[in-house]
Amino acid sequence: MSYSALLYHVEERVAKITLHRPEKLNAWTTAMDAEFRAAVAAAAADAEVRVIVVTGAGRGFCAGADMSLLESLAASGAAVDLPRQFQFLQALEKPVIAAINGPAVGLGLILTLHCDLRFASQEARFGTAFAKRGLIAEYGMAWMLPRLIGHANALDILLSARIFDAGEALRMGLVNQVFPAPTFLFDVMAYARQLATEVSPRSIAVMKRQVYQGLTQTFDEAAAVAEQEMLLSLQSEDFKEGVAHFLGKRPPSFTGR
Amino acid sequence: MSYSALLYHVEERVAKITLHRPEKLNAWTTAMDAEFRAAVAAAAADAEVRVIVVTGAGRGFCAGADMSLLESLAASGAAVDLPRQFQFLQALEKPVIAAINGPAVGLGLILTLHCDLRFASQEARFGTAFAKRGLIAEYGMAWMLPRLIGHANALDILLSARIFDAGEALRMGLVNQVFPAPTFLFDVMAYARQLATEVSPRSIAVMKRQVYQGLTQTFDEAAAVAEQEMLLSLQSEDFKEGVAHFLGKRPPSFTGR
Amino acid sequence: MSYSALLYHVEERVAKITLHRPEKLNAWTTAMDAEFRAAVAAAAADAEVRVIVVTGAGRGFCAGADMSLLESLAASGAAVDLPRQFQFLQALEKPVIAAINGPAVGLGLILTLHCDLRFASQEARFGTAFAKRGLIAEYGMAWMLPRLIGHANALDILLSARIFDAGEALRMGLVNQVFPAPTFLFDVMAYARQLATEVSPRSIAVMKRQVYQGLTQTFDEAAAVAEQEMLLSLQSEDFKEGVAHFLGKRPPSFTGR
Repeated sequence: MSYSALLYHVEERVAKITLHRPEKLNAWTTAMDAEFRAAVAAAAADAEVRVIVVTGAGRGFCAGADMSLLESLAASGAAVDLPRQFQFLQALEKPVIAAINGPAVGLGLILTLHCDLRFASQEARFGTAFAKRGLIAEYGMAWMLPRLIGHANALDILLSARIFDAGEALRMGLVNQVFPAPTFLFDVMAYARQLATEVSPRSIAVMKRQVYQGLTQTFDEAAAVAEQEMLLSLQSEDFKEGVAHFLGKRPPSFTGR
Repeated sequence: MSYSALLYHVEERVAKITLHRPEKLNAWTTAMDAEFRAAVAAAAADAEVRVIVVTGAGRGFCAGADMSLLESLAASGAAVDLPRQFQFLQALEKPVIAAINGPAVGLGLILTLHCDLRFASQEARFGTAFAKRGLIAEYGMAWMLPRLIGHANALDILLSARIFDAGEALRMGLVNQVFPAPTFLFDVMAYARQLATEVSPRSIAVMKRQVYQGLTQTFDEAAAVAEQEMLLSLQSEDFKEGVAHFLGKRPPSFTGR
Repeated sequence: MSYSALLYHVEERVAKITLHRPEKLNAWTTAMDAEFRAAVAAAAADAEVRVIVVTGAGRGFCAGADMSLLESLAASGAAVDLPRQFQFLQALEKPVIAAINGPAVGLGLILTLHCDLRFASQEARFGTAFAKRGLIAEYGMAWMLPRLIGHANALDILLSARIFDAGEALRMGLVNQVFPAPTFLFDVMAYARQLATEVSPRSIAVMKRQVYQGLTQTFDEAAAVAEQEMLLSLQSEDFKEGVAHFLGKRPPSFTGR
């Protein structure tokens, strides 16, 4: 597959997807939407890939829906193909990291909310934008934000649509860590490689499922799943390797089985 | 309507409700309870008002239930009219901001938990108080606190009933922002005016509903609501204005329709 | 009862349980598991005890399951007695404080998650460990972590299994407070004694139940429980004492009735 609105690159078991309309701060188009889903599917299907990183080309991460899309909507009402939901990212077995290098606004922010982890450059900026356009909390973000940052922070950034910086995003818990701009992508890739080499891909797949399913389970339901999954993990190759490399004081070589 | 236990003032589309028993740190009485509900109803019904700010006169926000109320309760058991629940604030279409200028304790703290946003002066102090009186986590605060600050912080402040300051409240996520005391109300009103003029009142009403309903929905339920609300918003006057003012590079003039 | 893998000590209404295999960083064994449950049961049954503190001997808190347990598991699959769930700690009427003096890893971290409050020494270190062993998010921690620190922080520490320090644990909300190492246990015990003497044991028991049950209730369910519990509390001895000591400006003498 060849891409026009993004770059796709695999190195050291990490697939990097770079949104690539830098002159438009990587604003989202229907073409980019289709290519993004294809690139993620390619990374999911590639046995070599263990981690997916999403970032933006140039000085922006993603400025939201492209204005052409909004103008069509304003002209035609709903007779425009809208991007679909992003929760397919959470359903993946592989972890997805948003590397937020610059402004992540509107749909660009929503994209990051569906990644498993969010790392921000000190240059990153955030905003929901929708209330300034007469729109609403789109794509389930009214559900995701309160679980990440509490409902009061969610209301603050949704109702005011104000722009806020990486330090505030960290304080709210919207991002996992902030890295200095000069070394940003280097720092994110170091974390990604650690996920790709030092932990069991099988563990990651099970844990992702446990965490997201747990958000709407009772404790007893989650504990029952954990017990069943623990017994299954004890039969796995990765558990044997997890004990063996520790006792052998050597780096692990997990297969994901 | 004339008020004796509070002040009501509308300016620049912001209704300010000031609890006004300053000699008692604005401790809550049955009279204040009735007046507060009337003032909020007046603000909700006034088309001119887009944002409601609640604050306290003098050096306190609200020191909790007035001791006269507690003494009556101790003497008579339950044969006293208790203030009703506060969740009607969350059911309002307009945003409600708690401007916590000083101590917010017991029932005073509960009142702030039912506001959409909480801003604290550096002079603000917080405490749940109930465990020191042999009481329990009243009015649904055992539900609200864990969703705002996590259940461990909730247990800390509920079980110990200790007094804590604005900096700790910010670290826990109990308040959205802390402003210096000298400019406190000025800073809160600037935020309130931004909500009143720069974003769509229709967006605010829908988003408030989405966030609070989302707290007990599954992701799929919330996403289905969001899809339906997005389609409705595309038909609204506020969406047309939201695109038009952006393209025209002029301030918006939202109607809420 | 005499203990070999822990120390049990009651003083000033606080029961201190010290995990005691210091040469192994207090790694968890089946013997320690049985003794821990017995010690907690003793503290729960002792009318003199109002607060339970769990800490570790030497420089560690608990380094997780002892390697002997993991080796047996790796050799035999599931034919080994596994420690049971820890949610009995949340079902206790008395508050349980984890005093995390040093590394709390794997099962050691899970133990702290089931305590009501977590205080960390500046020397404390944290890690989930499981993904490095090919294991999963055990014992309901995939449910607890997102409610304490948000699901993005939960995914970070579960998927990477990285070691992090007390400052980061505080920022995430994993611990309630961090105290300097030289005064750590002194500071924790001061907090514990405050719980033991200044607040109603009856209030604590009801509030614990309210908070944990509230995590899977709707707001209306939680508010209905609160109303019923408030009416019951108004009939209690502790409420009468809570008002009386306040009006009398003297320390309280709560009975828990």
